[in-house]
Amino acid sequence: MVLATSLCQGACVEPTMGKENGKVVVLDFWASPYAMRTKIALREKGVEFEVQEEDLWNKSELLLKSNPVHEKVPVLIHNNIPICESLVQVQYIDETWTEAASFLPADPQSRATARFWADYADKTISFAGGRKIWGNKKGEEQDKGIEEFFESLKVLENELGDKTYFGGETFGYVDIALVPFYSWFHALEECGGGFSVEAACPKIVAWGKRCVERKSVADSLPESEKVYQQVLKLRQIFNVEQNECREH
Amino acid sequence: MVLATSLCQGACVEPTMGKENGKVVVLDFWASPYAMRTKIALREKGVEFEVQEEDLWNKSELLLKSNPVHEKVPVLIHNNIPICESLVQVQYIDETWTEAASFLPADPQSRATARFWADYADKTISFAGGRKIWGNKKGEEQDKGIEEFFESLKVLENELGDKTYFGGETFGYVDIALVPFYSWFHALEECGGGFSVEAACPKIVAWGKRCVERKSVADSLPESEKVYQQVLKLRQIFNVEQNECREH
Repeated sequence: MVLATSLCQGACVEPTMGKENGKVVVLDFWASPYAMRTKIALREKGVEFEVQEEDLWNKSELLLKSNPVHEKVPVLIHNNIPICESLVQVQYIDETWTEAASFLPADPQSRATARFWADYADKTISFAGGRKIWGNKKGEEQDKGIEEFFESLKVLENELGDKTYFGGETFGYVDIALVPFYSWFHALEECGGGFSVEAACPKIVAWGKRCVERKSVADSLPESEKVYQQVLKLRQIFNVEQNECREH
Repeated sequence: MVLATSLCQGACVEPTMGKENGKVVVLDFWASPYAMRTKIALREKGVEFEVQEEDLWNKSELLLKSNPVHEKVPVLIHNNIPICESLVQVQYIDETWTEAASFLPADPQSRATARFWADYADKTISFAGGRKIWGNKKGEEQDKGIEEFFESLKVLENELGDKTYFGGETFGYVDIALVPFYSWFHALEECGGGFSVEAACPKIVAWGKRCVERKSVADSLPESEKVYQQVLKLRQIFNVEQNECREH
């Protein structure tokens, strides 16, 4: 048995995944924006990895053992050692595979700027925030969710301005943190009564399209329609309503 | 005028603070656990800094201009450039003053561990979490706040185990993130009906005492009784109740 020091509360993941040194596995769920971050980061660095798709209603022993604190995907397993929390994983990937360009700029001030905006994006554009839209029927709660979503997205649009990426010409940390949610915009639009993210935040949508031109992003983000179908399933599971959102 | 690229949404702080190169200012509020993090980090690095105490009910122009996104303390101003969000500041301090020991270990796995636990502490032991205790009268809401507080603190106690600090023998990133809340424990105990943090989490309290033996922490944390008196004021402001919590 490999003696692995775990990153998550001392749990040790048995090396059932293979004993090759350097093996990288992502415990994944295809629609998770957080798991998309991790896959984009690995692909940007040219790291080969295996994906193990999780059933979130019947989580694997490996997932529960690898991430005992949160019991959530994604988990990044490198050399049998689990690393949890997507932004921690992105930083780990950046610091481990250093041959490719860093996701963060070199000088401390620009690094702080990137961390500030990644943190802002992480706190405001989230699965929980989106759920306030798709997880509610039309009404006050949903309206509040839509208002909060656009309030935050407009702050990010303002910061992006006319830059190619959040950090300027280089695709980096903030882009990786935020772009997965671009694949959820369509589902939010449909479930939120047919608003248009592009009408409200054209620069963010143009940026999303630019990001998807990168292979790392295209390979990691699912089709918007597929995400929408998944959200419809979630609405059924959570008893929001049976009908398609689209009938607005 | 110094042309400063701001870290917060493009705002430019006028160099009213002095034009010396390298000047460091903290826009502070003495009872803010977040501001304590920043002051501990600066003191650990031996950085001289000025403190500008803010009136949180009448925030200065400088604060509003330096942190337009959140409008919150602490703001770290270095060479007239504002840096916002306490954990971003701690990382900035670590990467800017590199002569003193780093707050983070060198290898990527240990760095990921530290970031995971700092993130966990940040998300679960918070001002908002504490407010569920001191901001409510006795009853269900307060009981829920107390339950959540101990649930998280016990996870942290388990991770700390018998180590001196969270990272082992070296005071570091997780300690800086969490220890400010040690100064609020007494207020939570008094307002929460007289529970004992030490009885439930003796290792965390012993760790807090060890941390306070460091000059950087002792100089940055207020007296517990002073925090309690401040919390009583907050309870009056937010109309929780007029009496002292202590009368349990």
